[in-house]
Amino acid sequence: MHTQSSHVRRCHDFRWDDVPLLEYKAVDEAPFKDVTRQVLFQRDDMASELRYFEVAPGGHSTLERHAHVHAVIILRGRGRCLVGIEVTAIDTHDLITVPPMTWHQFRAADDAPLGFLCMVAHDRDRPQLPTADDLVQLRARPDVASFLDGAA
Amino acid sequence: MHTQSSHVRRCHDFRWDDVPLLEYKAVDEAPFKDVTRQVLFQRDDMASELRYFEVAPGGHSTLERHAHVHAVIILRGRGRCLVGIEVTAIDTHDLITVPPMTWHQFRAADDAPLGFLCMVAHDRDRPQLPTADDLVQLRARPDVASFLDGAA
Repeated sequence: MHTQSSHVRRCHDFRWDDVPLLEYKAVDEAPFKDVTRQVLFQRDDMASELRYFEVAPGGHSTLERHAHVHAVIILRGRGRCLVGIEVTAIDTHDLITVPPMTWHQFRAADDAPLGFLCMVAHDRDRPQLPTADDLVQLRARPDVASFLDGAA
Repeated sequence: MHTQSSHVRRCHDFRWDDVPLLEYKAVDEAPFKDVTRQVLFQRDDMASELRYFEVAPGGHSTLERHAHVHAVIILRGRGRCLVGIEVTAIDTHDLITVPPMTWHQFRAADDAPLGFLCMVAHDRDRPQLPTADDLVQLRARPDVASFLDGAA
């Protein structure tokens, strides 16, 4: 039996062989806090990619929307997500579907990280950020405003 | 905060809300032992699907190959896999890439299940089973023969 294989990459505490730990995004590109990115599967002969994002305790991803769909499974920890106008508690192995052009954001708990796999199409559009008007509309709902402010 | 959401499906011990537990394959379709299938993400507007397979202790998936690529991440337990002519021990969160037209099989340990996510293109070819000649070639390697016989 091989201990090393060209087809198998081992995981050590949510870091993977031959997978670099990347910044989530360029810092000046969009607002976010304490998020890392690892691209686990990305090949020209694959229709989709699988990435692992980890949000540190108290951190959050960017509030954004796009035409492509996100399929997410939580791999580690817990937190909350906003999808559309729904704020929901999420825990390890829960599934989240983000439909096209739907505002979404992921927030880790204050005392736990939130690590998740995200499947996206290889060819996809760039995310859009909310305008001031979009934020006014989202914040019209008290639970959404509270979520966006990072309040529990 | 919502306790239920149309976008979030909760996990309870590797079963998910609104996801039926399916047979891996039709029993007369191909050889396998003690494998279940849950389709976690499958939509017409997604380029790929994400399925969860669970092999019970001592069980195994079908030995097969196909043109489409498999991207696999172990979600639970441990075991071994054959990819091409490489037999490798695999553990929780390890990544396995199955390139096009490459023989592959997953086997759970005798004392642990092997649960894994598998990403595949929405449009894909059907698996091929090995011919008697293919099996002779694969079994020419003692470690592969031992793997196929389920020996540790």
